[in-house]
Amino acid sequence: MNIVQSLPSVCLVLGGSRSGKSRYAEALINSRGHGLYLATAEKLDVEMGERIKRHKARRGSNWELIEEPIDIGRIIANESKLGRPILVDCLTLWVSNMMHAEYDCIDALPAIIASAQATAESVVFVSNEVGLGIVPDNSLAREFRDVAGLVNQSVAQAANTVVFVAAGLPMFLKGEIS
Amino acid sequence: MNIVQSLPSVCLVLGGSRSGKSRYAEALINSRGHGLYLATAEKLDVEMGERIKRHKARRGSNWELIEEPIDIGRIIANESKLGRPILVDCLTLWVSNMMHAEYDCIDALPAIIASAQATAESVVFVSNEVGLGIVPDNSLAREFRDVAGLVNQSVAQAANTVVFVAAGLPMFLKGEIS
Amino acid sequence: MNIVQSLPSVCLVLGGSRSGKSRYAEALINSRGHGLYLATAEKLDVEMGERIKRHKARRGSNWELIEEPIDIGRIIANESKLGRPILVDCLTLWVSNMMHAEYDCIDALPAIIASAQATAESVVFVSNEVGLGIVPDNSLAREFRDVAGLVNQSVAQAANTVVFVAAGLPMFLKGEIS
Repeated sequence: MNIVQSLPSVCLVLGGSRSGKSRYAEALINSRGHGLYLATAEKLDVEMGERIKRHKARRGSNWELIEEPIDIGRIIANESKLGRPILVDCLTLWVSNMMHAEYDCIDALPAIIASAQATAESVVFVSNEVGLGIVPDNSLAREFRDVAGLVNQSVAQAANTVVFVAAGLPMFLKGEIS
Repeated sequence: MNIVQSLPSVCLVLGGSRSGKSRYAEALINSRGHGLYLATAEKLDVEMGERIKRHKARRGSNWELIEEPIDIGRIIANESKLGRPILVDCLTLWVSNMMHAEYDCIDALPAIIASAQATAESVVFVSNEVGLGIVPDNSLAREFRDVAGLVNQSVAQAANTVVFVAAGLPMFLKGEIS
Repeated sequence: MNIVQSLPSVCLVLGGSRSGKSRYAEALINSRGHGLYLATAEKLDVEMGERIKRHKARRGSNWELIEEPIDIGRIIANESKLGRPILVDCLTLWVSNMMHAEYDCIDALPAIIASAQATAESVVFVSNEVGLGIVPDNSLAREFRDVAGLVNQSVAQAANTVVFVAAGLPMFLKGEIS
Protein backbone atom coordinates (compact mmCIF):
# COMPACT_ATOMS: atom_id res chain seq x y z
CA MET A 1 0.00 0.00 0.00
CA ASN A 2 1.36 3.35 -1.03
CA ILE A 3 0.41 5.59 1.86
CA VAL A 4 1.93 8.68 0.35
CA GLN A 5 -0.31 8.64 -2.71
CA SER A 6 -3.20 9.32 -0.40
CA LEU A 7 -1.36 11.70 1.91
CA PRO A 8 -2.85 15.17 2.07
CA SER A 9 -0.74 17.98 0.66
CA VAL A 10 -0.25 19.67 4.04
CA CYS A 11 -0.33 17.65 7.24
CA LEU A 12 0.35 18.71 10.83
CA VAL A 13 1.39 16.11 13.39
CA LEU A 14 1.07 17.56 16.89
CA GLY A 15 2.14 15.94 20.13
CA GLY A 16 4.08 16.15 23.34
CA SER A 17 7.72 15.44 23.92
CA ARG A 18 8.42 11.72 23.39
CA SER A 19 4.88 11.12 22.19
CA GLY A 20 6.08 9.27 19.11
CA LYS A 21 5.04 12.13 16.82
CA SER A 22 8.23 12.11 14.68
CA ARG A 23 8.03 8.35 14.28
CA TYR A 24 4.36 8.60 13.29
CA ALA A 25 5.16 11.31 10.73
CA GLU A 26 8.05 9.28 9.30
CA ALA A 27 5.81 6.25 8.91
CA LEU A 28 3.37 8.34 6.87
CA ILE A 29 6.10 8.97 4.33
CA ASN A 30 8.37 5.95 4.73
CA SER A 31 6.59 3.48 2.48
CA ARG A 32 7.20 5.82 -0.42
CA GLY A 33 10.89 5.08 -0.55
CA HIS A 34 12.30 8.57 -0.70
CA GLY A 35 11.56 11.55 1.46
CA LEU A 36 13.33 14.71 2.46
CA TYR A 37 13.91 15.15 6.15
CA LEU A 38 14.11 18.88 6.87
CA ALA A 39 15.62 19.13 10.35
CA THR A 40 15.32 22.41 12.24
CA ALA A 41 17.42 21.17 15.17
CA GLU A 42 20.92 22.48 15.68
CA LYS A 43 23.56 20.31 17.31
CA LEU A 44 24.13 22.86 20.08
CA ASP A 45 24.85 20.29 22.76
CA VAL A 46 25.53 16.61 23.31
CA GLU A 47 21.92 15.85 24.30
CA MET A 48 20.54 17.22 21.03
CA GLY A 49 23.37 15.56 19.07
CA GLU A 50 22.38 12.17 20.50
CA ARG A 51 18.72 12.74 19.69
CA ILE A 52 19.52 13.70 16.10
CA LYS A 53 21.67 10.57 15.73
CA ARG A 54 18.89 8.29 17.02
CA HIS A 55 16.33 9.83 14.68
CA LYS A 56 18.70 9.41 11.72
CA ALA A 57 19.35 5.73 12.51
CA ARG A 58 15.62 5.06 12.81
CA ARG A 59 14.71 6.66 9.50
CA GLY A 60 17.11 4.56 7.49
CA SER A 61 18.88 5.39 4.26
CA ASN A 62 15.95 6.20 2.00
CA TRP A 63 15.83 9.74 3.34
CA GLU A 64 17.86 12.76 2.38
CA LEU A 65 18.64 15.11 5.24
CA ILE A 66 18.76 18.89 5.04
CA GLU A 67 19.46 20.88 8.18
CA GLU A 68 18.02 24.40 8.21
CA PRO A 69 17.16 26.11 11.48
CA ILE A 70 15.56 29.28 10.05
CA ASP A 71 14.69 29.50 6.36
CA ILE A 72 12.47 26.46 5.99
CA GLY A 73 10.19 28.18 3.47
CA ARG A 74 13.06 28.44 0.98
CA ILE A 75 13.95 24.75 1.38
CA ILE A 76 10.33 23.66 0.91
CA ALA A 77 9.97 25.86 -2.19
CA ASN A 78 13.21 24.55 -3.76
CA GLU A 79 12.78 20.91 -2.90
CA SER A 80 9.14 20.60 -3.75
CA LYS A 81 10.01 20.66 -7.45
CA LEU A 82 11.71 17.29 -6.97
CA GLY A 83 8.37 15.64 -6.29
CA ARG A 84 9.20 13.92 -3.03
CA PRO A 85 7.42 14.30 0.30
CA ILE A 86 9.00 16.56 2.91
CA LEU A 87 9.00 16.04 6.66
CA VAL A 88 9.65 19.22 8.66
CA ASP A 89 10.83 18.20 12.14
CA CYS A 90 9.97 20.31 13.96
CA LEU A 91 8.14 23.63 13.95
CA THR A 92 8.67 24.16 17.68
CA LEU A 93 12.46 24.17 17.34
CA TRP A 94 12.03 26.49 14.37
CA VAL A 95 10.07 28.88 16.65
CA SER A 96 12.86 28.66 19.20
CA ASN A 97 15.56 29.31 16.54
CA MET A 98 13.61 32.24 15.11
CA MET A 99 13.15 33.80 18.55
CA HIS A 100 16.86 33.45 19.36
CA ALA A 101 17.69 35.17 16.07
CA GLU A 102 15.05 37.83 16.87
CA TYR A 103 12.96 37.09 13.79
CA ASP A 104 9.16 37.21 13.85
CA CYS A 105 7.53 33.79 13.36
CA ILE A 106 4.06 35.16 12.72
CA ASP A 107 5.39 37.39 9.90
CA ALA A 108 7.39 34.55 8.36
CA LEU A 109 4.71 31.87 8.54
CA PRO A 110 2.40 32.78 5.60
CA ALA A 111 5.24 32.34 3.06
CA ILE A 112 6.14 28.95 4.57
CA ILE A 113 2.53 27.80 4.45
CA ALA A 114 2.18 29.04 0.86
CA SER A 115 5.30 27.07 -0.14
CA ALA A 116 3.88 23.95 1.44
CA GLN A 117 0.51 24.37 -0.23
CA ALA A 118 2.20 24.90 -3.62
CA THR A 119 4.07 21.58 -3.56
CA ALA A 120 2.85 18.71 -5.72
CA GLU A 121 3.88 16.29 -2.97
CA SER A 122 3.02 16.17 0.73
CA VAL A 123 4.60 18.36 3.37
CA VAL A 124 4.26 16.94 6.87
CA PHE A 125 4.98 19.36 9.71
CA VAL A 126 5.79 17.95 13.15
CA SER A 127 5.15 20.27 16.09
CA ASN A 128 5.06 20.19 19.87
CA GLU A 129 2.04 21.11 21.92
CA VAL A 130 3.69 22.99 24.82
CA GLY A 131 0.77 24.80 26.48
CA LEU A 132 -0.73 22.08 28.67
CA GLY A 133 1.40 22.58 31.77
CA ILE A 134 1.59 25.22 34.48
CA VAL A 135 2.29 28.83 33.35
CA PRO A 136 6.10 29.16 33.31
CA ASP A 137 7.73 31.63 35.76
CA ASN A 138 10.05 32.84 33.05
CA SER A 139 8.63 35.55 30.74
CA LEU A 140 10.66 34.33 27.75
CA ALA A 141 9.21 30.84 28.21
CA ARG A 142 5.71 32.36 28.33
CA GLU A 143 6.37 34.26 25.11
CA PHE A 144 7.73 31.09 23.47
CA ARG A 145 4.63 29.18 24.55
CA ASP A 146 2.42 31.90 23.08
CA VAL A 147 4.22 31.99 19.73
CA ALA A 148 4.43 28.18 19.47
CA GLY A 149 0.68 27.95 20.12
CA LEU A 150 -0.16 30.60 17.52
CA VAL A 151 2.07 28.89 14.96
CA ASN A 152 0.28 25.59 15.60
CA GLN A 153 -3.11 27.26 15.15
CA SER A 154 -2.07 28.87 11.84
CA VAL A 155 -0.58 25.71 10.38
CA ALA A 156 -3.58 23.68 11.57
CA GLN A 157 -5.93 26.09 9.81
CA ALA A 158 -4.01 25.73 6.54
CA ALA A 159 -3.47 21.97 6.81
CA ASN A 160 -5.69 19.35 5.18
CA THR A 161 -5.06 16.94 8.01
CA VAL A 162 -4.16 17.51 11.65
CA VAL A 163 -3.26 14.63 13.94
CA PHE A 164 -2.63 14.71 17.69
CA VAL A 165 -0.29 11.89 18.73
CA ALA A 166 -0.16 10.54 22.30
CA ALA A 167 1.80 7.43 23.31
CA GLY A 168 2.46 6.82 19.61
CA LEU A 169 -1.24 6.70 18.70
CA PRO A 170 -3.11 9.21 16.52
CA MET A 171 -6.27 11.22 17.18
CA PHE A 172 -7.52 13.06 14.11
CA LEU A 173 -8.43 16.68 14.73
CA LYS A 174 -9.02 17.44 11.05
CA GLY A 175 -9.27 15.25 7.97
CA GLU A 176 -8.10 11.67 7.88
CA ILE A 177 -5.35 9.57 6.34
CA SER A 178 -6.72 6.60 4.48
CA MET B 1 -27.26 29.02 10.72
CA ASN B 2 -28.03 29.95 14.28
CA ILE B 3 -25.49 27.96 16.26
CA VAL B 4 -26.71 29.16 19.62
CA GLN B 5 -30.21 27.71 19.23
CA SER B 6 -28.61 24.28 19.32
CA LEU B 7 -25.95 25.09 21.92
CA PRO B 8 -26.16 22.95 25.02
CA SER B 9 -27.11 24.76 28.23
CA VAL B 10 -23.74 24.12 29.88
CA CYS B 11 -20.62 23.71 27.78
CA LEU B 12 -16.98 23.33 28.84
CA VAL B 13 -14.21 24.26 26.40
CA LEU B 14 -10.90 22.85 27.64
CA GLY B 15 -7.50 23.46 26.14
CA GLY B 16 -3.92 24.52 26.61
CA SER B 17 -2.49 27.99 26.61
CA ARG B 18 -2.79 29.50 23.11
CA SER B 19 -4.79 26.54 21.88
CA GLY B 20 -7.49 28.76 20.40
CA LYS B 21 -9.99 27.73 23.09
CA SER B 22 -11.34 31.26 23.75
CA ARG B 23 -11.70 31.91 20.04
CA TYR B 24 -13.52 28.59 19.61
CA ALA B 25 -15.87 29.40 22.51
CA GLU B 26 -16.56 32.88 21.12
CA ALA B 27 -17.41 31.43 17.72
CA LEU B 28 -20.00 29.17 19.36
CA ILE B 29 -21.84 32.24 20.61
CA ASN B 30 -20.88 34.89 18.06
CA SER B 31 -23.44 34.22 15.34
CA ARG B 32 -26.17 34.97 17.85
CA GLY B 33 -25.45 38.67 17.87
CA HIS B 34 -25.29 39.34 21.58
CA GLY B 35 -23.41 37.56 24.29
CA LEU B 36 -22.08 38.39 27.70
CA TYR B 37 -18.35 38.01 28.13
CA LEU B 38 -17.65 37.30 31.80
CA ALA B 39 -13.92 37.91 32.22
CA THR B 40 -12.19 36.55 35.30
CA ALA B 41 -8.84 38.13 34.39
CA GLU B 42 -7.56 41.09 36.32
CA LYS B 43 -5.32 43.66 34.67
CA LEU B 44 -2.54 43.07 37.18
CA ASP B 45 0.28 43.65 34.72
CA VAL B 46 1.03 44.90 31.23
CA GLU B 47 1.17 41.39 29.74
CA MET B 48 -2.36 40.56 30.93
CA GLY B 49 -3.59 44.03 29.94
CA GLU B 50 -2.37 43.43 26.37
CA ARG B 51 -4.02 40.01 26.24
CA ILE B 52 -7.36 41.41 27.45
CA LYS B 53 -7.16 44.18 24.83
CA ARG B 54 -6.50 41.67 22.00
CA HIS B 55 -9.41 39.45 23.07
CA LYS B 56 -11.73 42.46 23.22
CA ALA B 57 -10.75 43.64 19.72
CA ARG B 58 -11.33 40.15 18.32
CA ARG B 59 -14.79 39.72 19.83
CA GLY B 60 -16.15 42.92 18.32
CA SER B 61 -18.93 45.16 19.57
CA ASN B 62 -21.79 42.68 19.89
CA TRP B 63 -20.58 41.56 23.29
CA GLU B 64 -21.09 43.12 26.67
CA LEU B 65 -18.16 42.75 29.04
CA ILE B 66 -18.37 42.17 32.78
CA GLU B 67 -15.17 41.70 34.74
CA GLU B 68 -15.52 39.65 37.91
CA PRO B 69 -12.55 37.73 39.30
CA ILE B 70 -14.34 35.92 42.16
CA ASP B 71 -18.13 35.88 42.34
CA ILE B 72 -18.97 34.47 38.93
CA GLY B 73 -21.99 32.53 40.26
CA ARG B 74 -23.76 35.79 41.15
CA ILE B 75 -23.10 37.26 37.70
CA ILE B 76 -24.38 34.14 35.95
CA ALA B 77 -27.52 34.08 38.15
CA ASN B 78 -28.28 37.77 37.53
CA GLU B 79 -27.50 37.87 33.84
CA SER B 80 -29.16 34.66 32.87
CA LYS B 81 -32.58 36.32 33.19
CA LEU B 82 -31.66 38.50 30.20
CA GLY B 83 -31.75 35.49 27.92
CA ARG B 84 -28.36 35.86 26.30
CA PRO B 85 -25.53 33.33 26.22
CA ILE B 86 -22.66 33.79 28.66
CA LEU B 87 -19.00 33.05 28.03
CA VAL B 88 -16.95 32.59 31.21
CA ASP B 89 -13.28 33.11 30.32
CA CYS B 90 -11.73 31.47 32.16
CA LEU B 91 -12.19 29.07 35.07
CA THR B 92 -8.45 28.62 35.56
CA LEU B 93 -7.91 32.30 36.31
CA TRP B 94 -10.93 32.12 38.61
CA VAL B 95 -9.19 29.26 40.49
CA SER B 96 -6.06 31.39 40.72
CA ASN B 97 -8.03 34.43 41.97
CA MET B 98 -9.89 32.32 44.53
CA MET B 99 -6.68 30.80 45.84
CA HIS B 100 -5.03 34.21 46.19
CA ALA B 101 -8.04 35.41 48.15
CA GLU B 102 -7.92 32.19 50.22
CA TYR B 103 -11.40 31.06 49.20
CA ASP B 104 -12.22 27.39 48.57
CA CYS B 105 -13.01 26.62 44.91
CA ILE B 106 -14.47 23.20 45.61
CA ASP B 107 -16.93 24.67 48.15
CA ALA B 108 -17.92 27.49 45.81
CA LEU B 109 -18.35 25.42 42.65
CA PRO B 110 -21.75 23.72 43.20
CA ALA B 111 -23.56 27.09 43.40
CA ILE B 112 -21.85 28.27 40.21
CA ILE B 113 -22.78 25.09 38.38
CA ALA B 114 -26.37 25.33 39.65
CA SER B 115 -26.60 28.93 38.35
CA ALA B 116 -25.34 27.82 34.97
CA GLN B 117 -27.76 24.91 34.78
CA ALA B 118 -30.67 27.19 35.74
CA THR B 119 -30.14 29.60 32.82
CA ALA B 120 -32.48 29.50 29.84
CA GLU B 121 -29.55 30.32 27.59
CA SER B 122 -26.15 28.69 27.19
CA VAL B 123 -23.25 29.15 29.56
CA VAL B 124 -19.90 28.30 27.98
CA PHE B 125 -17.00 27.87 30.41
CA VAL B 126 -13.46 28.13 29.07
CA SER B 127 -10.77 26.40 31.11
CA ASN B 128 -7.11 25.47 30.88
CA GLU B 129 -5.83 21.94 31.13
CA VAL B 130 -2.65 22.46 33.20
CA GLY B 131 -1.72 18.96 34.34
CA LEU B 132 0.09 17.55 31.32
CA GLY B 133 3.60 18.76 32.09
CA ILE B 134 6.24 17.81 34.63
CA VAL B 135 5.27 18.02 38.34
CA PRO B 136 6.11 21.59 39.42
CA ASP B 137 8.84 22.09 42.06
CA ASN B 138 6.73 24.68 43.80
CA SER B 139 4.11 23.32 46.26
CA LEU B 140 1.69 26.19 45.57
CA ALA B 141 1.85 25.40 41.85
CA ARG B 142 1.14 21.74 42.65
CA GLU B 143 -1.87 22.74 44.75
CA PHE B 144 -3.10 25.03 41.98
CA ARG B 145 -2.75 22.21 39.46
CA ASP B 146 -4.74 19.91 41.74
CA VAL B 147 -7.57 22.37 42.30
CA ALA B 148 -7.73 23.39 38.62
CA GLY B 149 -7.95 19.71 37.64
CA LEU B 150 -10.71 18.97 40.16
CA VAL B 151 -12.68 22.03 39.01
CA ASN B 152 -12.43 20.83 35.40
CA GLN B 153 -13.67 17.37 36.40
CA SER B 154 -16.66 18.80 38.29
CA VAL B 155 -17.71 21.17 35.54
CA ALA B 156 -17.22 18.44 32.92
CA GLN B 157 -19.50 16.13 34.89
CA ALA B 158 -22.24 18.77 35.02
CA ALA B 159 -21.82 19.97 31.43
CA ASN B 160 -23.89 18.74 28.49
CA THR B 161 -20.95 19.17 26.16
CA VAL B 162 -17.20 19.08 26.76
CA VAL B 163 -14.73 19.99 24.02
CA PHE B 164 -10.94 19.73 24.09
CA VAL B 165 -9.36 22.27 21.74
CA ALA B 166 -5.85 21.83 20.31
CA ALA B 167 -4.36 24.08 17.62
CA GLY B 168 -7.81 25.68 17.28
CA LEU B 169 -9.54 22.39 16.48
CA PRO B 170 -12.13 20.60 18.65
CA MET B 171 -12.24 17.05 19.98
CA PHE B 172 -15.54 16.20 21.65
CA LEU B 173 -15.19 14.49 25.01
CA LYS B 174 -18.92 14.61 25.76
CA GLY B 175 -21.94 15.50 23.68
CA GLU B 176 -21.72 17.36 20.39
CA ILE B 177 -22.55 20.72 18.91
CA SER B 178 -24.63 20.44 15.79
CA MET C 1 -23.60 -5.08 33.71
CA ASN C 2 -20.30 -6.78 34.29
CA ILE C 3 -17.80 -4.40 32.76
CA VAL C 4 -14.80 -6.55 33.58
CA GLN C 5 -15.96 -9.48 31.47
CA SER C 6 -15.51 -7.29 28.44
CA LEU C 7 -12.37 -5.53 29.62
CA PRO C 8 -9.37 -6.03 27.36
CA SER C 9 -6.49 -7.99 28.82
CA VAL C 10 -4.09 -5.04 28.79
CA CYS C 11 -5.41 -1.52 29.07
CA LEU C 12 -3.54 1.79 29.37
CA VAL C 13 -5.28 4.80 30.91
CA LEU C 14 -3.29 7.95 30.13
CA GLY C 15 -3.96 11.42 31.43
CA GLY C 16 -2.68 14.50 33.16
CA SER C 17 -2.39 15.17 36.84
CA ARG C 18 -5.87 15.39 38.38
CA SER C 19 -7.51 14.38 35.14
CA GLY C 20 -9.60 11.69 36.83
CA LYS C 21 -7.55 8.90 35.23
CA SER C 22 -7.25 6.78 38.42
CA ARG C 23 -10.94 7.14 39.11
CA TYR C 24 -11.75 6.15 35.53
CA ALA C 25 -9.47 3.10 35.76
CA GLU C 26 -11.02 2.05 39.08
CA ALA C 27 -14.51 2.32 37.63
CA LEU C 28 -13.49 -0.08 34.84
CA ILE C 29 -12.74 -2.72 37.44
CA ASN C 30 -15.03 -1.76 40.32
CA SER C 31 -18.25 -3.43 39.26
CA ARG C 32 -16.44 -6.75 39.40
CA GLY C 33 -16.30 -6.79 43.16
CA HIS C 34 -12.67 -7.64 43.72
CA GLY C 35 -9.59 -6.10 42.26
CA LEU C 36 -5.96 -5.79 43.21
CA TYR C 37 -4.68 -2.27 43.54
CA LEU C 38 -0.94 -2.29 42.84
CA ALA C 39 0.32 1.05 44.13
CA THR C 40 3.74 2.26 43.02
CA ALA C 41 3.62 5.36 45.26
CA GLU C 42 5.80 5.56 48.32
CA LYS C 43 4.67 7.57 51.33
CA LEU C 44 7.77 9.78 51.19
CA ASP C 45 6.02 12.89 52.40
CA VAL C 46 2.78 14.16 53.91
CA GLU C 47 1.40 15.32 50.53
CA MET C 48 1.75 11.85 48.99
CA GLY C 49 0.44 10.23 52.19
CA GLU C 50 -2.74 12.32 51.95
CA ARG C 51 -3.21 11.45 48.29
CA ILE C 52 -2.83 7.73 48.98
CA LYS C 53 -5.37 7.97 51.82
CA ARG C 54 -7.92 9.74 49.59
CA HIS C 55 -7.53 7.15 46.81
CA LYS C 56 -7.95 4.31 49.33
CA ALA C 57 -11.15 5.82 50.80
CA ARG C 58 -12.60 6.27 47.31
CA ARG C 59 -11.92 2.72 46.16
CA GLY C 60 -13.77 1.13 49.07
CA SER C 61 -13.22 -2.23 50.70
CA ASN C 62 -13.55 -4.54 47.71
CA TRP C 63 -9.93 -3.96 46.75
CA GLU C 64 -6.78 -5.52 48.06
CA LEU C 65 -3.79 -3.19 48.17
CA ILE C 66 -0.20 -4.15 47.43
CA GLU C 67 2.47 -1.46 47.52
CA GLU C 68 5.47 -2.12 45.31
CA PRO C 69 7.55 0.77 43.97
CA ILE C 70 9.92 -1.25 41.72
CA ASP C 71 9.21 -4.89 40.94
CA ILE C 72 5.72 -4.64 39.53
CA GLY C 73 6.35 -7.41 36.99
CA ARG C 74 6.76 -9.95 39.81
CA ILE C 75 3.52 -8.84 41.51
CA ILE C 76 1.57 -9.04 38.26
CA ALA C 77 2.98 -12.51 37.50
CA ASN C 78 2.17 -13.83 40.99
CA GLU C 79 -1.22 -12.27 41.38
CA SER C 80 -2.52 -13.00 37.94
CA LYS C 81 -3.00 -16.65 38.91
CA LEU C 82 -5.70 -15.52 41.34
CA GLY C 83 -7.93 -14.47 38.45
CA ARG C 84 -8.74 -10.96 39.54
CA PRO C 85 -8.15 -7.74 37.62
CA ILE C 86 -5.13 -5.64 38.53
CA LEU C 87 -4.88 -1.87 38.54
CA VAL C 88 -1.31 -0.56 38.35
CA ASP C 89 -1.33 3.05 39.62
CA CYS C 90 0.83 4.42 38.25
CA LEU C 91 3.57 3.79 35.70
CA THR C 92 4.93 7.33 35.96
CA LEU C 93 5.75 6.94 39.65
CA TRP C 94 7.30 3.58 38.80
CA VAL C 95 9.55 5.36 36.28
CA SER C 96 10.49 7.87 38.96
CA ASN C 97 11.22 5.11 41.51
CA MET C 98 13.28 3.15 38.97
CA MET C 99 15.33 6.21 38.05
CA HIS C 100 16.02 7.05 41.71
CA ALA C 101 17.22 3.48 42.23
CA GLU C 102 19.28 3.75 39.02
CA TYR C 103 17.49 0.90 37.27
CA ASP C 104 16.74 0.98 33.55
CA CYS C 105 13.00 1.22 32.78
CA ILE C 106 13.37 0.36 29.11
CA ASP C 107 15.25 -2.87 29.97
CA ALA C 108 12.71 -3.84 32.63
CA LEU C 109 9.57 -3.11 30.64
CA PRO C 110 9.31 -6.13 28.28
CA ALA C 111 9.05 -8.57 31.22
CA ILE C 112 6.34 -6.45 32.84
CA ILE C 113 4.37 -6.28 29.60
CA ALA C 114 4.78 -10.03 29.09
CA SER C 115 3.42 -10.67 32.61
CA ALA C 116 0.43 -8.47 31.92
CA GLN C 117 -0.28 -10.17 28.58
CA ALA C 118 -0.05 -13.61 30.22
CA THR C 119 -2.77 -12.92 32.81
CA ALA C 120 -6.21 -14.45 32.37
CA GLU C 121 -7.71 -11.30 33.84
CA SER C 122 -7.30 -7.64 32.90
CA VAL C 123 -4.34 -5.49 33.84
CA VAL C 124 -5.10 -1.78 33.71
CA PHE C 125 -2.05 0.50 33.75
CA VAL C 126 -2.54 4.14 34.75
CA SER C 127 0.08 6.57 33.50
CA ASN C 128 0.72 10.29 33.30
CA GLU C 129 1.30 12.15 30.09
CA VAL C 130 4.04 14.61 31.15
CA GLY C 131 5.41 15.90 27.84
CA LEU C 132 2.90 18.61 26.93
CA GLY C 133 4.45 21.53 28.77
CA ILE C 134 7.54 23.66 28.27
CA VAL C 135 10.93 21.83 28.15
CA PRO C 136 12.13 21.68 31.79
CA ASP C 137 15.33 23.58 32.72
CA ASN C 138 16.51 20.65 34.77
CA SER C 139 18.31 17.87 32.84
CA LEU C 140 17.05 15.14 35.21
CA ALA C 141 13.47 16.31 34.59
CA ARG C 142 14.12 16.17 30.83
CA GLU C 143 15.45 12.64 31.15
CA PHE C 144 12.45 11.63 33.26
CA ARG C 145 10.11 13.11 30.65
CA ASP C 146 11.89 11.16 27.91
CA VAL C 147 11.74 7.84 29.76
CA ALA C 148 8.13 8.33 30.86
CA GLY C 149 7.16 9.06 27.25
CA LEU C 150 8.98 6.01 25.90
CA VAL C 151 7.36 3.79 28.55
CA ASN C 152 3.92 5.10 27.56
CA GLN C 153 4.65 4.37 23.89
CA SER C 154 5.77 0.80 24.64
CA VAL C 155 2.82 -0.03 26.87
CA ALA C 156 0.42 1.58 24.38
CA GLN C 157 1.84 -0.58 21.60
CA ALA C 158 1.29 -3.75 23.64
CA ALA C 159 -2.13 -2.75 25.03
CA ASN C 160 -5.44 -3.81 23.53
CA THR C 161 -7.04 -0.57 24.62
CA VAL C 162 -5.57 2.88 25.24
CA VAL C 163 -7.66 5.70 26.70
CA PHE C 164 -6.72 9.33 27.18
CA VAL C 165 -8.66 10.88 30.07
CA ALA C 166 -9.23 14.64 30.36
CA ALA C 167 -11.53 16.22 32.96
CA GLY C 168 -12.68 12.71 33.87
CA LEU C 169 -13.82 11.89 30.33
CA PRO C 170 -12.29 9.27 28.01
CA MET C 171 -11.00 9.57 24.46
CA PHE C 172 -10.13 6.21 22.91
CA LEU C 173 -6.76 6.11 21.18
CA LYS C 174 -6.89 2.38 20.54
CA GLY C 175 -9.63 -0.21 20.92
CA GLU C 176 -12.80 0.37 22.89
CA ILE C 177 -14.45 -0.75 26.09
CA SER C 178 -17.97 -1.95 25.52
